Amino acid sequence: MNSDSRLALARDLDAEDPLASYRLLFEAHDNAAIRAYLDGNSLGRPLKATVGRLTEFVRDQWGGRLIRGWDEDWLQLPQSVGDRIGAVALGAGAGQCVVADSTSVLLYKAIRAALAARPDRSEIVIERDNFPTDRFIVEGIAADRGLSVRWVEAAYDAGPTPDEVAGALGPDTAVVVLSHVAYRSAHIADMKTITRLVHDAGALAVWDLSHSVGSVPVELDASGADFAVGCSYKYLNGGPGAPAWAYVARRHLPDLAQPIQGWLGSADPFGMGSGYQPAEGIRRMVSGTPPILGMLALQDMLDVLEQVGMEAVRAKSVKLTSFAIDTVDELMGPAGVKVASPRDSEQRGSHITIDHPSFRTVLPDLWEDGVIPDFRNPDGLRLGLSPLSTSYEETLIGIRAIAEKLPSKAPD
Amino acid sequence: MNSDSRLALARDLDAEDPLASYRLLFEAHDNAAIRAYLDGNSLGRPLKATVGRLTEFVRDQWGGRLIRGWDEDWLQLPQSVGDRIGAVALGAGAGQCVVADSTSVLLYKAIRAALAARPDRSEIVIERDNFPTDRFIVEGIAADRGLSVRWVEAAYDAGPTPDEVAGALGPDTAVVVLSHVAYRSAHIADMKTITRLVHDAGALAVWDLSHSVGSVPVELDASGADFAVGCSYKYLNGGPGAPAWAYVARRHLPDLAQPIQGWLGSADPFGMGSGYQPAEGIRRMVSGTPPILGMLALQDMLDVLEQVGMEAVRAKSVKLTSFAIDTVDELMGPAGVKVASPRDSEQRGSHITIDHPSFRTVLPDLWEDGVIPDFRNPDGLRLGLSPLSTSYEETLIGIRAIAEKLPSKAPD
Repeated sequence: MNSDSRLALARDLDAEDPLASYRLLFEAHDNAAIRAYLDGNSLGRPLKATVGRLTEFVRDQWGGRLIRGWDEDWLQLPQSVGDRIGAVALGAGAGQCVVADSTSVLLYKAIRAALAARPDRSEIVIERDNFPTDRFIVEGIAADRGLSVRWVEAAYDAGPTPDEVAGALGPDTAVVVLSHVAYRSAHIADMKTITRLVHDAGALAVWDLSHSVGSVPVELDASGADFAVGCSYKYLNGGPGAPAWAYVARRHLPDLAQPIQGWLGSADPFGMGSGYQPAEGIRRMVSGTPPILGMLALQDMLDVLEQVGMEAVRAKSVKLTSFAIDTVDELMGPAGVKVASPRDSEQRGSHITIDHPSFRTVLPDLWEDGVIPDFRNPDGLRLGLSPLSTSYEETLIGIRAIAEKLPSKAPD
Repeated sequence: MNSDSRLALARDLDAEDPLASYRLLFEAHDNAAIRAYLDGNSLGRPLKATVGRLTEFVRDQWGGRLIRGWDEDWLQLPQSVGDRIGAVALGAGAGQCVVADSTSVLLYKAIRAALAARPDRSEIVIERDNFPTDRFIVEGIAADRGLSVRWVEAAYDAGPTPDEVAGALGPDTAVVVLSHVAYRSAHIADMKTITRLVHDAGALAVWDLSHSVGSVPVELDASGADFAVGCSYKYLNGGPGAPAWAYVARRHLPDLAQPIQGWLGSADPFGMGSGYQPAEGIRRMVSGTPPILGMLALQDMLDVLEQVGMEAVRAKSVKLTSFAIDTVDELMGPAGVKVASPRDSEQRGSHITIDHPSFRTVLPDLWEDGVIPDFRNPDGLRLGLSPLSTSYEETLIGIRAIAEKLPSKAPD
């Protein structure tokens, strides 16, 4: 396919994309200085509605209701927004999700809670290539509690598989910490099968869904997951550093114990009484005062996702990443660029990573030119294709710009 | 003084108040439905500048710079905003303060870090009447680590005194957790003397400055404090649930160990390497991705505080709380209302609590009428007088409205 016909294809795909018009809902979608935003998997774009929501909030809610806002609305937001995320994106029934803290802090709480439910076991299992914060948190907890860490070794773009996880399980396994969509390759782990294996070994599963939520439909209840966490600034477009969310399966709620016993997770925060009595239900995962300002923007994206539905989002995502892979193959394959993500769309999330030794140095120029992927060690450019805010033509423009940065063949 | 002359006094005090015009900088200061906002110690009012800052941020920074914002600015914000808080309000030299998480989570980290520095000691000391989250966090850590809690018993409105704290210290004391300004009485603890006593006992001091920061000047470096935490949604006007801040004295930074080893507290977060290596300096207190949206509003208040200076803020605060006490005595003293805060302004923060058995039921009516204090068990109405956003006349209007709710004397 020549260059013109690939552009024509991109435009055709945009023209027939039933979700194409949603792109217009995002801030700066028509900003000429942003030629291709390929990092929606790291930081989602703001919705235009968010400016209005923030303004209204500051003037009318914070400014007008003042402290009364807590009683009228805000205290319930961690649970009500959590329920909305659970319903639209996670396959989670009400009362099992809550918004709070950061992903790292919620991971800490979830893993500690899981360990508290398996007090006689001594090992935490985690994949060697899991996201750094997951590994670091696990290593910190293990050192702190005198536990050992067992590493799952998995192929970069094809794991962890159920077999790979099964090989690491044993009678000492307390908790298994895995990402559903891998942060580099976007490989999708088989949550249901792996969780069953973890349970068969008598252990509990903690899933990190940061790269899934809002782009790949998840069925937490149906897959039997025990705990899950994820962030809201990627495909939930909550803004930089927006608070995270946690899921605790209903069966674990009655005995849930997490180590950061803050007042807003207690049964009667404003009783100011002596002795921590945990709140009933998922609110027990909360510690401090809920970050209300930080959970406004993501509500705009939930409005959109509830309207569109995750099946349509996923369908666009699959087509978009397939188009990106084809384009990379055509424009950069001959120069030795490798697609480091699964080619089978069933096993692939909403980003792809492409590898080439030259990519380590190209990012500043690309960013300067308004073409914005990110770089992940050792050699990867990661192209995050947020389904509702990314067009096929934008994807093509971005990949073309990357191809132009490839070094010319050295003279013989 | 009759009713008219007290109003005249309030207006005179407003007329001669050098900070009076700052009230105009706040949203809704002229909203007739808010007759008296007396809860700035719980949730500070938004500055008008905040709407513009949020709009600019969403459109130009988040929307326009997208992921590039992290490299250009955002990654440094926890430390740069922390330094600003430290310089203007805490007497803390640069490099010792950071914005992150909630107060509860930072308390957890600070106490765990202090315990890690005193591994051979078995006791945490805390005041019986400290804020619930402080007590709950301490009890949780103690249960988790097999430590004991020793309670300081202090007079409600006059402690904890150095002697009361000293009585609880011993060779097993690892950490002492105290509030500087008490959340109910507003009593100011003698930080310097108490910290010296704590150090003499070989222990470390963790100070909660939630009710001090931005209203009562603090000298953390000069007082020898080891750790401190505080929130930013009270007198720093950061908005509901805005992130908290932590201080770690420079001498503790090289060996600082906190239990939630997230990627943003590691030496090279984007290296994605194996094994957590802690960042140098105060960034080690960070765990997850910094809450950028949540730390925008408080920067507006820092702009104002840097212009005004804490001495002027404190001077207004003292006059305002003194006026409030005189007014309560005059209007409600005969009906048996007691001032439960120190009458000596040197020992009093920027709020007062007044006690009467009838106060338990009056809050809904007051709130409905646009008079907004809060209630604290058992019998207290708490009147928080945020120095820059509260006028003397507003204070009088609020106290008068409360006085009108007092029950008439029952017939003989």
